[in-house]
Amino acid sequence: MAESLAELARIGGRPDGGVDRLAGSPADVEARQWLAARMREAGLEAGLDEVNNVFGHPPGAGPWLLLGSHTDTVPAGGRLDGAYGVLAALEVYQALATAGHPAAARVALVSFHDEEGVSGHGFEGSEHFCASAPLASISGYLELHIEQGPRLEAEGLELGVVDAIVGIDRYDVALIGQANHAGTTPFSYRRDAGRAATRFIGGLRELVQAIEPRMVANVGALQLEPGAPNVVPGAARFVLEVRCPEPAALGAARARLEDELGRIATEEGCQLEFTPQTSWPAMAMFPGYVAALERVAQRSGLPWRRLESGAGHDAEILARHVPAAMLFVPSHEGLSHSPREHTDDRLLAQGCQALLDGTLEILGG
Amino acid sequence: MAESLAELARIGGRPDGGVDRLAGSPADVEARQWLAARMREAGLEAGLDEVNNVFGHPPGAGPWLLLGSHTDTVPAGGRLDGAYGVLAALEVYQALATAGHPAAARVALVSFHDEEGVSGHGFEGSEHFCASAPLASISGYLELHIEQGPRLEAEGLELGVVDAIVGIDRYDVALIGQANHAGTTPFSYRRDAGRAATRFIGGLRELVQAIEPRMVANVGALQLEPGAPNVVPGAARFVLEVRCPEPAALGAARARLEDELGRIATEEGCQLEFTPQTSWPAMAMFPGYVAALERVAQRSGLPWRRLESGAGHDAEILARHVPAAMLFVPSHEGLSHSPREHTDDRLLAQGCQALLDGTLEILGG
Repeated sequence: MAESLAELARIGGRPDGGVDRLAGSPADVEARQWLAARMREAGLEAGLDEVNNVFGHPPGAGPWLLLGSHTDTVPAGGRLDGAYGVLAALEVYQALATAGHPAAARVALVSFHDEEGVSGHGFEGSEHFCASAPLASISGYLELHIEQGPRLEAEGLELGVVDAIVGIDRYDVALIGQANHAGTTPFSYRRDAGRAATRFIGGLRELVQAIEPRMVANVGALQLEPGAPNVVPGAARFVLEVRCPEPAALGAARARLEDELGRIATEEGCQLEFTPQTSWPAMAMFPGYVAALERVAQRSGLPWRRLESGAGHDAEILARHVPAAMLFVPSHEGLSHSPREHTDDRLLAQGCQALLDGTLEILGG
Repeated sequence: MAESLAELARIGGRPDGGVDRLAGSPADVEARQWLAARMREAGLEAGLDEVNNVFGHPPGAGPWLLLGSHTDTVPAGGRLDGAYGVLAALEVYQALATAGHPAAARVALVSFHDEEGVSGHGFEGSEHFCASAPLASISGYLELHIEQGPRLEAEGLELGVVDAIVGIDRYDVALIGQANHAGTTPFSYRRDAGRAATRFIGGLRELVQAIEPRMVANVGALQLEPGAPNVVPGAARFVLEVRCPEPAALGAARARLEDELGRIATEEGCQLEFTPQTSWPAMAMFPGYVAALERVAQRSGLPWRRLESGAGHDAEILARHVPAAMLFVPSHEGLSHSPREHTDDRLLAQGCQALLDGTLEILGG
């Protein structure tokens, strides 16, 4: 599998070891054609559908347990995000087929289009797949992925069984005060939108953790207007992102966040504009699959834990329609969406073995 | 004077009532030539010097009490900032000359080049003037200006006697943490430069007021990097501006500000880069002139107060070389550097009368 990872990483490969394979780019399409050819070499019927999903399955009508992930990347992405799960799935199929195992006929493979969201909010390919004919031939979905976060490595663990994928709510926030000369306007006369925004953002962690311990939030950019060192900001605009694996918690958070913003805005003489932007519901993984993967992890003797995925994955789209679950391997230093993304080969091989074992556990093999 | 203000405002005038007369622009030069012509009509020897300062004086060698301000504006500026003080000075001279008052021979007029800082940090013209031959003929400097802040109007006052011009220190601040995925990185693993910066900025007012009650500070823009909603900021950069009329206070503030930033940076796992950028010393106005202007204000029967100037003015440059002082009239709603800048004609006329009375008080006339 290390060899096929290296071969795939050369398509759209960067001198710094990263990969540029944006969904729909020539490199992305070339990688998908390469993948379909590899599937056909392995004995599957494989090709690209209308949106460039690569779907490979044994001859016949299924039902198949679908294994896979995606092969598109973010700009200057890493060689593992998505690609690892796709090639591990191919490896699992080849191992079963080579061994003449009957489970080989009950497995199908996929690389979904545009998981990263070049043409929209992401998950374009898995949403299309779930709205098209092949879904009827799928009994469930398993996805192996790098964690893209620091927890497994920091806790000395080598495998993660994902029990839920976080929901993500985004809000457009604007605080409108009054731009003023920063020298001639005493503090008591200011309606400082920058102060209002920074008071809220600086206290966001405590606010969110008081709502629900598994909730996180982020403000990645803050626009102060007009933006000069000697002008008190008259407006502050930012996107507030909140994530939680508990389905009910995000709804409850909305009122708390808006209340706190409103309270600070009033104190600072500002107007608040609080506009829900996008809302992705939290998605629990299928309990039967989670239990099967936990048995596999336990039997492996590897140090492991249950955890939620803080990032979105195609599995959350599939989970609306069929049983679905995920496995994680550690990400070195938690880095992803970066050329420096890395996981040791030993850990990658262990994850691939767990995907094989999980497939057999789920298929009752 | 209302007529001459309207005539000058047409040079570089905007449809919205504002003025675009950036230093060195054709409109700025046209206004300066118009002004020199007006000075010559009034009987002065007047012209533009090497940097387009307009300097007008009676025949002879002085010494003269210099009256004036500047006629350049910021982009989309108002019709009063600078221009009011220049035309009031011309009015004062004309009144003295028309009355045959001997003080007319002891007054000179000026419009300084680029007070606003188009070609540098501002005060280009007054710095040049103070380094050139005419300075030797100047006994002192009086500048009448709109307040550009809300205090006089808010307190129901009609005249301000400026006792000091604030010093301004600017610092380039960078907080360097680690960019991370905002979903997969729990709070406890983050080195969030945005949180560090907003904690500091959100508490800046309390910090500064604890150092010195007359001190103000501002952060007008905040750059978070890389700047995506789903990425924890790995770097935060901003310019911190601090102003105070107390000369010693700014120096004391530096250590307090750097300490607080360092404390927060450490708590958030970030590195602090704290770099002094520019430093303008606070400048006290000449006590004898301040006392003379206070006597004038008291005799006028107008409601008045002493106050510091929170903005920089040419008077702070002149004050390094000769006795200098300033008078303020109210700015409606504190607005300046805006086409909406406004002061009622009655208040403008009162300010002009105070400049005349102050000139005579200082000249012992």
